[in-house]
Amino acid sequence: MAKDKKQNRPKALTPKGFRDYFGSEVTERNQMLQNIADIYHSYGFEALESSAVETVESLGKFLPDVDQPNEGVFAWQEDDQDWLALRYDLTAPLARVYAQYRNELPTPYRRYSMGAVWRNEKPGPGRFRQFYQCDADTVGSSSIASDSEICMLLSDALENVGISEGDYIIKTNNRKVLNGVLENMKVQEVSKRDAILRTVDKFDKVGETGIRQLLGKGRLDASGAYIDGVGLSDSEADLVVAFLTSRGTNIETTLKNLKNLIGTSAVGIEGVNELEKMAELFDAGGYGSNKISVDPSVVRGLGYYTGPVYEAELTFEIFDEKGRKRQFGSVSGGGRYDDLVKRFTGQVVPATGVSIGVDRLLAALKEKGRIAHMGLGPVVVTVMDRDRMSDYQEIVTELRNAGIRSEVYLGNPKNFGNQLKYADNRRSPAAIIQGTEERDSGTIQIKDLILGKKLSKEASLEEWKDRPSQFTVQRDQLIQKIREILSAYK
Amino acid sequence: MAKDKKQNRPKALTPKGFRDYFGSEVTERNQMLQNIADIYHSYGFEALESSAVETVESLGKFLPDVDQPNEGVFAWQEDDQDWLALRYDLTAPLARVYAQYRNELPTPYRRYSMGAVWRNEKPGPGRFRQFYQCDADTVGSSSIASDSEICMLLSDALENVGISEGDYIIKTNNRKVLNGVLENMKVQEVSKRDAILRTVDKFDKVGETGIRQLLGKGRLDASGAYIDGVGLSDSEADLVVAFLTSRGTNIETTLKNLKNLIGTSAVGIEGVNELEKMAELFDAGGYGSNKISVDPSVVRGLGYYTGPVYEAELTFEIFDEKGRKRQFGSVSGGGRYDDLVKRFTGQVVPATGVSIGVDRLLAALKEKGRIAHMGLGPVVVTVMDRDRMSDYQEIVTELRNAGIRSEVYLGNPKNFGNQLKYADNRRSPAAIIQGTEERDSGTIQIKDLILGKKLSKEASLEEWKDRPSQFTVQRDQLIQKIREILSAYK
Repeated sequence: MAKDKKQNRPKALTPKGFRDYFGSEVTERNQMLQNIADIYHSYGFEALESSAVETVESLGKFLPDVDQPNEGVFAWQEDDQDWLALRYDLTAPLARVYAQYRNELPTPYRRYSMGAVWRNEKPGPGRFRQFYQCDADTVGSSSIASDSEICMLLSDALENVGISEGDYIIKTNNRKVLNGVLENMKVQEVSKRDAILRTVDKFDKVGETGIRQLLGKGRLDASGAYIDGVGLSDSEADLVVAFLTSRGTNIETTLKNLKNLIGTSAVGIEGVNELEKMAELFDAGGYGSNKISVDPSVVRGLGYYTGPVYEAELTFEIFDEKGRKRQFGSVSGGGRYDDLVKRFTGQVVPATGVSIGVDRLLAALKEKGRIAHMGLGPVVVTVMDRDRMSDYQEIVTELRNAGIRSEVYLGNPKNFGNQLKYADNRRSPAAIIQGTEERDSGTIQIKDLILGKKLSKEASLEEWKDRPSQFTVQRDQLIQKIREILSAYK
Repeated sequence: MAKDKKQNRPKALTPKGFRDYFGSEVTERNQMLQNIADIYHSYGFEALESSAVETVESLGKFLPDVDQPNEGVFAWQEDDQDWLALRYDLTAPLARVYAQYRNELPTPYRRYSMGAVWRNEKPGPGRFRQFYQCDADTVGSSSIASDSEICMLLSDALENVGISEGDYIIKTNNRKVLNGVLENMKVQEVSKRDAILRTVDKFDKVGETGIRQLLGKGRLDASGAYIDGVGLSDSEADLVVAFLTSRGTNIETTLKNLKNLIGTSAVGIEGVNELEKMAELFDAGGYGSNKISVDPSVVRGLGYYTGPVYEAELTFEIFDEKGRKRQFGSVSGGGRYDDLVKRFTGQVVPATGVSIGVDRLLAALKEKGRIAHMGLGPVVVTVMDRDRMSDYQEIVTELRNAGIRSEVYLGNPKNFGNQLKYADNRRSPAAIIQGTEERDSGTIQIKDLILGKKLSKEASLEEWKDRPSQFTVQRDQLIQKIREILSAYK
C-alpha cells in the first residue's frame, strides 16, 4: 500500500522547456523593464496589457517565422468548440487590439507592452518555451518620423538600463532599397525575392564568401549538409553583396553607395530618400552615428516588413561557450509593417515597432557588471529562547521601522548553528543575538556575517578566536550599528 | 471574390471572459504591486516567478474549491502525450517549486509571487478567466510566529498601497478552535464536519438566522430554492452560532468566550493557545486590535487550512450596484496549510500564507480616491510644416531632456484641427505650435489645453476670443513655460 502510494505521487518538475525565476532574477528583470517603461512613457507611449490568451482565429494560427499553420503555439479547444491559444508575441495581439478598439484609441496609437509570450517549440539550451518580450509600436502613422522615433527610443532605453554609449549601435536600413536593388537586377518572381531575402539575413553568420555561395549554386554547411543556392549569376550575386557591404565611413557615403546600386528603380529611390530623412531626424534629435547608423547589412528575415528596419547590437566583446571572443550581438529589432491590422479590417494600417529580447538584454547587463551582485539578504534576528518570541518581534519591528530589511528566524530554534547557517544561506549581512543574559543587562549581540566569512577564510585560527566580527552593544545602539554594517556593503 | 474575402476575415475580439488593460490600468496596478513587493521584501521574503504552465499531474487537476477533477483549468495535451495546464493560483506552483528545489532553498522559505492566474470558469460581470494574484507564503515553519508575521505583513502592505489605519481590519481565527467546538459537540464524521465548515463560511452572507436554518433543517434561499440543512439539533446549532459570535470587546474576552465553548477538547485548547500567542506577537510588533483582531466569525471555506486563518477586510462603505450602502469587504485571505507539499514528497511540510485579490484591492483604491485621476498625457509638438520635421524633433528632444513627457504629432498634419483633437484625446496638458513665422522671429506658441477646455466651457464667447490659453513666448522660454503649466496640474 505504502509503495503504491509513493508511485502515485506526482513528480515535482517544471514542464519541459519552462523555467522558474528566483529572487534577484525576478527583481532585476522587473527593474530593467521599469527603466525601459520610463523611457517609453516619456516618449508619449501608453501601456497596453492584452490578454495572454487569444482565439486561434485572431492569432492567425502561425508564427511570422514559421511556415506551417498551427505550428508553434500552445492551443486547446473550448467546450463550445472555439480554439484558444497562448500569444506567441506581442505584435499579433496589438493588431487585434487596434482593430477591436480603433474607434476609441487615439490615432496614431503609440503603445508599449511587456510580458510573457509562449512558443510550442522544441526546447534547447537557453531556449525556453516561455520568455519575455518588451515592445513599443506606433500604429496609424505612415510618417518616417515614427520609424526614426522608435530608433531614438531604443537608444535611450538601452542607455537607461545601463548600456553605455559606445557599447551599442542601432543599425537602420530600408527594405525598399533592397527591393530597388532587386528591381534593378530584374528579379521579378516573389519566390526568388523571398529566397534572396532569407539568404541575405544569414550574412552575419556565414560572411561574404558564404553569402556568395548561397546566392549562387549553394554551399556545404558546418554539419556537412549541402544547402542549395538561390541560383543567381556571379554578377547578380555581386550586386547583392555590394548592397550588403555598402556601408561607408559616414551616412552620406553609404547613401551614395546605395544610389549607385538601385539605378532608376522608383521604390529604391523612395527607400534611399526615407533613409536620408531618418538620418536628418537622428541628427536633429542629437543622436550621432555612434548611436544610430545606416547599415545595409541589416535586412531582418521577417517577410512582413515593408520599409525601414532596425536592429540594436551590443558591440562589447564576451567569451562564448567555447571560450572564443565575440561581440554580444543583437538584443532588439523591428521595422515597419503595414498589413497586420488589414487581416481584421480589410484596411491597410501603417505601423512600425520594435521588440526587445528581455532575457538577452538582462544577460548583457550581467556581462557588463551593470547588475553588480546578488543582493544582500535580510538581517536575521535569531531565537535564543523560544518563549521570548515577543522580544524578538519587538526587535524586528524596530529594524523594519528604521527601513532595514529584517526577519525573525522561524525554523526550529533548538540548534543555534542552524540559525547562523540559514542566515549565511540567505546572504544576511548580520545576525542579531539576544539571550536572557544580554536582555537583563540591556545589551544585544551583533554578528557581522560578511566580515565573519572573510575572517574565517583569511585569518589564522589565533586571530579568529577573538571573533571581532561578533560584538556586544547597548540595546539602544542596535539600529546605528546595523546601519554602519550595511553601509560598508552598499 | 471580395465578399468571400471579407467573410474569411478573423473577428477582432478578446476571447470570452478575458480582457485587455490600457494605459493607467496597467501602470496603476504595477505601482500598487511594487508597493506591496516593497513590504514583502522588507520582511525578508524573496520573489518567485514560477512558470505559468504546469503539468496537470503536478497541479493536481483540481482547484482547491472545486470538487470535480479536471474542472476549472485550461489544459491541453502535448504531442508526447503529457498534459499541460495554465496555473489556477500561485499556491499549487509554490508547493511544486518547494518540493523540486527543497535542497537548495533556505528553510524556512519565505517567498512572494505576483502574476496572472487562469480559471476555466463561466465568465460573468466582473468575473474574468485571467486575473492577478499577489501572494506571500512561508514554507517550512510550524512556528505560530510565521502566521502572525503574515498578518502584520498584510497590515503593512495595505497601508503601503494607501489604505489608511481605520479603513481596514485583519481578522484572525484558528481552525483548531472550531474543531474543538465540534469535538465538544461530539461531531465525529468528517463529512458532517465539512458540511458545518462550508455552512459557517456563509455566515457573513446569510446572518445568524440564516446560519441557524442551514445548520438545522435548511432554508429557502433568495432564488426560492430550498437548501437542505446539515441536520444539527437546536442546541448544537446554538453552540456553533455562539462560536461565530464569540468576539468580545477585546481579545481577552474573545479568548475567554472561546474557552467556554471548547470544553476539554485538546485541539480546541491548542487553538486558543495559538490565538493567544499570536495576539502577544501583534502586541509586541505594535499592531493594536484596530489593525489586527481575533474574530471567530472568520472560518474561510477551503478544506486545506489546518490552523490559523486570516482575512483582510476593508471597512469603509461604498454603494453597491443597486445603490445600497455596504462595506467594501474582503480583499485578501489565507491561513496555515500543512499538506500541499506532501503530495509530492510524502512528508508533511508546514506552511502558511496569504493571497491578495489584486483587482479588488485596486478597485478599493479607486473608491478611496487613492488613485486620484487619469494621468495627464504627453505634451504634443504639432506639425505646422511637414518639411520641418527636424525642427519639431529638436523641440521634442529638448523637452525630453528636461524630463518632460512629450511627442511629435505623427498623423497626417494636413488638418491642424485634428492635431489639437488628438492632443485633447491624449489628455495632453499643452500643445506646442511653431509655424515659419514664429520660427523666423525666434518665438513659439503654447496652447494650454486644460485651461483652454475650461475656458471653452465656462467663459463667454467675448472672453474666449482673447484666447488667453494660447500665447506666444520666446523660443528659449519654452521649457520654463511648459513647467509652469505642468506644475499647475500636478
